[in-house]
Amino acid sequence: MPDTPTVFKTVPEPKDRRLRNLADCIRFLSMDAVQKAKSGHPGMPMGMADIAAVLFSEFMKFDAADPYWFDRDRFLISNGHGSMLLYSLLYLTGYRDMTIEEIKRFRQIDSRTAGHPEYHHATGIETTTGPLGQGTANSVGLALGERIMNASFGDELVDHHTYVFLGDGCLMEGISHEAISLAGHLKLGKLTAFWDNNSISIDGATSLAESDDQPTRFRAANWHVQEIDGHDTDAIRAAIFEAHKVTDRPSMIACKTIIGFGFPTKAGTQKAHSDAPGEEEIAGARQILGWTAPPFEIPDELLEDWRRIGAKGGAERAAWATRVENSGHRRADFERRMKGELPRGWRSAIEAAKQEVRGSEKDLATRQASGIVLNHLFDAIPELLGGSADLTPSNNTKAKNQVEIKPGEFAGSYIHYGVREHGMAAAMNGLALHGGLIPYGGTFLTFSDYSRPSIRLAAMMEVRTIFVMTHDSIGLGEDGPTHQPIEHLSALRAIPRLAVYRPGDPIETAECWEAIMDNSREAALIALSRQPMPLLRRERSEGNLAAKGAYVLQEAEGGDRQLTILATGSELHLAVEARAILQSEGVRTAVVSMPCRLAFGKQDPAYQKKVLGETRARVAVEAAVQDSWDRDLGLDGLFVGMHEFGASGKIDDIYKKFDITTDAVVRAGRQAIAALGG
Amino acid sequence: MPDTPTVFKTVPEPKDRRLRNLADCIRFLSMDAVQKAKSGHPGMPMGMADIAAVLFSEFMKFDAADPYWFDRDRFLISNGHGSMLLYSLLYLTGYRDMTIEEIKRFRQIDSRTAGHPEYHHATGIETTTGPLGQGTANSVGLALGERIMNASFGDELVDHHTYVFLGDGCLMEGISHEAISLAGHLKLGKLTAFWDNNSISIDGATSLAESDDQPTRFRAANWHVQEIDGHDTDAIRAAIFEAHKVTDRPSMIACKTIIGFGFPTKAGTQKAHSDAPGEEEIAGARQILGWTAPPFEIPDELLEDWRRIGAKGGAERAAWATRVENSGHRRADFERRMKGELPRGWRSAIEAAKQEVRGSEKDLATRQASGIVLNHLFDAIPELLGGSADLTPSNNTKAKNQVEIKPGEFAGSYIHYGVREHGMAAAMNGLALHGGLIPYGGTFLTFSDYSRPSIRLAAMMEVRTIFVMTHDSIGLGEDGPTHQPIEHLSALRAIPRLAVYRPGDPIETAECWEAIMDNSREAALIALSRQPMPLLRRERSEGNLAAKGAYVLQEAEGGDRQLTILATGSELHLAVEARAILQSEGVRTAVVSMPCRLAFGKQDPAYQKKVLGETRARVAVEAAVQDSWDRDLGLDGLFVGMHEFGASGKIDDIYKKFDITTDAVVRAGRQAIAALGG
Repeated sequence: MPDTPTVFKTVPEPKDRRLRNLADCIRFLSMDAVQKAKSGHPGMPMGMADIAAVLFSEFMKFDAADPYWFDRDRFLISNGHGSMLLYSLLYLTGYRDMTIEEIKRFRQIDSRTAGHPEYHHATGIETTTGPLGQGTANSVGLALGERIMNASFGDELVDHHTYVFLGDGCLMEGISHEAISLAGHLKLGKLTAFWDNNSISIDGATSLAESDDQPTRFRAANWHVQEIDGHDTDAIRAAIFEAHKVTDRPSMIACKTIIGFGFPTKAGTQKAHSDAPGEEEIAGARQILGWTAPPFEIPDELLEDWRRIGAKGGAERAAWATRVENSGHRRADFERRMKGELPRGWRSAIEAAKQEVRGSEKDLATRQASGIVLNHLFDAIPELLGGSADLTPSNNTKAKNQVEIKPGEFAGSYIHYGVREHGMAAAMNGLALHGGLIPYGGTFLTFSDYSRPSIRLAAMMEVRTIFVMTHDSIGLGEDGPTHQPIEHLSALRAIPRLAVYRPGDPIETAECWEAIMDNSREAALIALSRQPMPLLRRERSEGNLAAKGAYVLQEAEGGDRQLTILATGSELHLAVEARAILQSEGVRTAVVSMPCRLAFGKQDPAYQKKVLGETRARVAVEAAVQDSWDRDLGLDGLFVGMHEFGASGKIDDIYKKFDITTDAVVRAGRQAIAALGG
Repeated sequence: MPDTPTVFKTVPEPKDRRLRNLADCIRFLSMDAVQKAKSGHPGMPMGMADIAAVLFSEFMKFDAADPYWFDRDRFLISNGHGSMLLYSLLYLTGYRDMTIEEIKRFRQIDSRTAGHPEYHHATGIETTTGPLGQGTANSVGLALGERIMNASFGDELVDHHTYVFLGDGCLMEGISHEAISLAGHLKLGKLTAFWDNNSISIDGATSLAESDDQPTRFRAANWHVQEIDGHDTDAIRAAIFEAHKVTDRPSMIACKTIIGFGFPTKAGTQKAHSDAPGEEEIAGARQILGWTAPPFEIPDELLEDWRRIGAKGGAERAAWATRVENSGHRRADFERRMKGELPRGWRSAIEAAKQEVRGSEKDLATRQASGIVLNHLFDAIPELLGGSADLTPSNNTKAKNQVEIKPGEFAGSYIHYGVREHGMAAAMNGLALHGGLIPYGGTFLTFSDYSRPSIRLAAMMEVRTIFVMTHDSIGLGEDGPTHQPIEHLSALRAIPRLAVYRPGDPIETAECWEAIMDNSREAALIALSRQPMPLLRRERSEGNLAAKGAYVLQEAEGGDRQLTILATGSELHLAVEARAILQSEGVRTAVVSMPCRLAFGKQDPAYQKKVLGETRARVAVEAAVQDSWDRDLGLDGLFVGMHEFGASGKIDDIYKKFDITTDAVVRAGRQAIAALGG
């Protein structure tokens, strides 16, 4: 592709004038919106408009009047910078909240039309995209969710397609490999990807940085591949028909497109990718495409055509609703799962798990306790969908009654995600977005780094994706610094809205799982130990203490508190042991367990104050960096934890090397009190 | 691959008994070490021992007596859990620091033989591996570094191969896609990868989670591919010869291996992958392989053979040293670059850059200031190797005199990494590890999440990889929440040893670059603004203020400080404006600029105390989360910044929406003083 722009004076007369007109509606709304905002990306919507016109007018099963129709086809743009394509479609097909005013407010503060599609901002936005490749992997989760729900409820209730647009950037990102490899392996036949093969990236022609043969790459991952002219509506239609016929593999349609199709000088170059095109360029596009309507105006007959497209799924939706009504014994369960409500009585599974861990004769690691909780929870909540990034025996993520999902066999509840932490996390987001399922997946906490972009999006979208992360400290031992999370807890707690749990004993583990189940609109991560730890909560207590985020595990004895020790996870028992020593010395010491900082921050200030206590003599202990503790430690508190990367060795040797011991907590406690003149 | 173990009673008589013997040395050291440690991964070393034996005895250019010989071939194990393969090789070939005692101390605290290979722990460990796929991408950087240095200094001085072992897990990770795609694109003909195609992962057979046709996948990425029996030494030899012949593509040799080759019951199953095999299994292996030596003992004639292999590169190294001595005008520069020393006079480039930014008529964004610094720096330091993950025009990373590297054309200093943040970061680590080059690469700060695992390893290894991350806050505007880093600064500052710089004006930008150049053993990340900001450091100052991490930009006037305002980056000018208002109200206010928390932490306590001041009335302002500020704010300080994800809109609207304004800083300042009864 030459760097010097080719000048387009005309475009060939389309095979289908109506479809071109429909596509041009998208093109001009996109141009006009980007021009008005003086910011945005017109190139993708203009390049992929013909594909969208065919897909929406002839294939997509949806009803703009009911954006949450459970059995709708899902449509995503993984190349999320082309958001105006999606917003245009939503407006044109008649989604009620996507008005022309919103289109005019593209990229303005508090509009529904953010720079990239934001889940919750408007109906019809199936997921937040923008960070490249995420939508690609979300689509795998959505398509997988459809198959799993279909396996439970049959074709009458669940039978829809997932369509995803993706760009060169998506395919360069590593996550795309994990996603397409997983989709091909699982034989997700109802997933169709449209590659916007425009050969342009921000730096210039994609050939600057890439030589991949994408069709061969997809075939190597067990995909069905077609290569077409992305502006030939007959070819687009035929390719989608063909893709539907192939049921044992996902389909990739490589669509050769011209980025900014319609622009006189910028089409086919990186100048079409982003930024306001300028009035002149738009005027040229009007001439070339024969578009006479003023900015933001869609000719009546075209808008009517689009609105008919947006409404034509209504009959099918009504028929589906009737099928749901007539679905007999499955109906209640199906409706419950669509709504995201948990089955009645699920909480007794938590009680049963508590009873089981209390009855254990030996100390349990919290990962083992979590495994026990999952055994009980899965039996009560069948929509729990487990998995691991190839660490099943280590993560304790597979409940004993969970059946494995295999390629083409979706009647199950456990997924071997392979060594694909990022793809797993993003696919889980897709599964959560699909509805009807509660996905959780395991890896080591240190590999939260590999999946962090998707964890962030789960938090941002407020979907209940559950990240089970074991081996959560230097306590993992011999695997050494690369495998020992040090900064990860602080780094994860810094993500807004993400509930990071780190239970301090088997009972807290059950409570944390209960809290996660209770929060249907919260992404959660549970950090679990490799090593066993004592049962500290032997006594039965009222309610869910861990759900408050922090609570007084042991109050000071003998009068007002002189010292508060804060701790989580595998270090909680060090705090308890240190307190015993300090109390024996007459130091009035409380132990606060703080399994979830986010939850604690939501408690009323009086409770927070009571838990943290009056004294500024505070010590926090956690086998991780100090950062997320500073808020409660203040300038006078002291920290016992990690200040460096870890080390390979036996667990006791490591804790000793880094001086994370009962004795260190005792010393810090005395020192904190002394420094305050106590 | 069946889950039930196949029982091996014999193995076929090898074609080459000597090579099998050499390989068995690796096998038994690995078994013995894992058995003694009761922890580790014997399967990979036993499976890949034959390949290692052929590679090291017949191809590898190295000299165990001089581990840092610049023109040595590089050897990496991306499947780092197989560390005993590497440690065995180092011991056998006679690296002085890898004694049999160290082998016996495998996975013990403070040994050289950590669970995974740790750079700096022992000579001959070229990089830290363990997190899967990292070594694969490092090898791309190492091979690229060789070609770039070769282009500058010719075959006489730089001409070596890079060999990497990788496993199924490496190939499932997304980073492997970015790495192989980049290597294939650039035509890195001297890179050879050996895939340990053993069909086993932790959960079981790889077929549980994967159906990829790896040879086809590599061919699609422009690699030369061969498929061989990984235990047939003739085939291994022939494949390496063939790989050497192919100079216009990297080579992948798919080696069909039996994991745990030699084990009687665990071979070929996931049980061979990790954990101590047990005495019985080892006894069986002895019988099968005909090995009679006691644990940790290598028969003399085999050890002598291995030691000869370790020494035979000596002559070639001596010849190379002579060529270096005779390399005339290139010699001084080559020797300087090998040592990692900067050219004399480089610092004047910083002065020139400062002069240029001071002379700018308009406000500059720090990314623009950074671009100006790079223009000057590159002219002074030719080993600066730039690049960007497809954001060159946004990151301002391309110095005006930098020539682009193209496929097969390595006489240049700028790399279009493509949309591959993770692969770029890991390749940069490889480039830094290679030596002779100082790699830096750009992306948006929000995508630090995509490259975080490699950033962490750069910090852990203490290599000077420089991450240039622009668009460092909500100040990027319309692209919205997905593109606005919120938690990233805190999350990055939490990584031990990583120097995170966020300069507050163009002069500080130059100072930060100077500090980065001054620290040859520190990974650095520089966060830069999209938006322009005022020049605050108009006056010339002595020394490098930013290098101290924090300094008093403006001291309180009129007596002792009542309030300290801490700030970085694009919010520094808000602090300055707020101070002016507060001082005008009679509030004695200091402004502290804190471009690098890590550097500040290294200053002597007296300096730190002086900068932070006595008063506990402190306000920090940064358009990001509070977490990394809590340490200095204490319980009495107040924070002006982000508490949520960002928003899409015009920059001024966004700052107003989140109340990050001069006025907010003024209010917080008054409030902080009032709360302390001031």
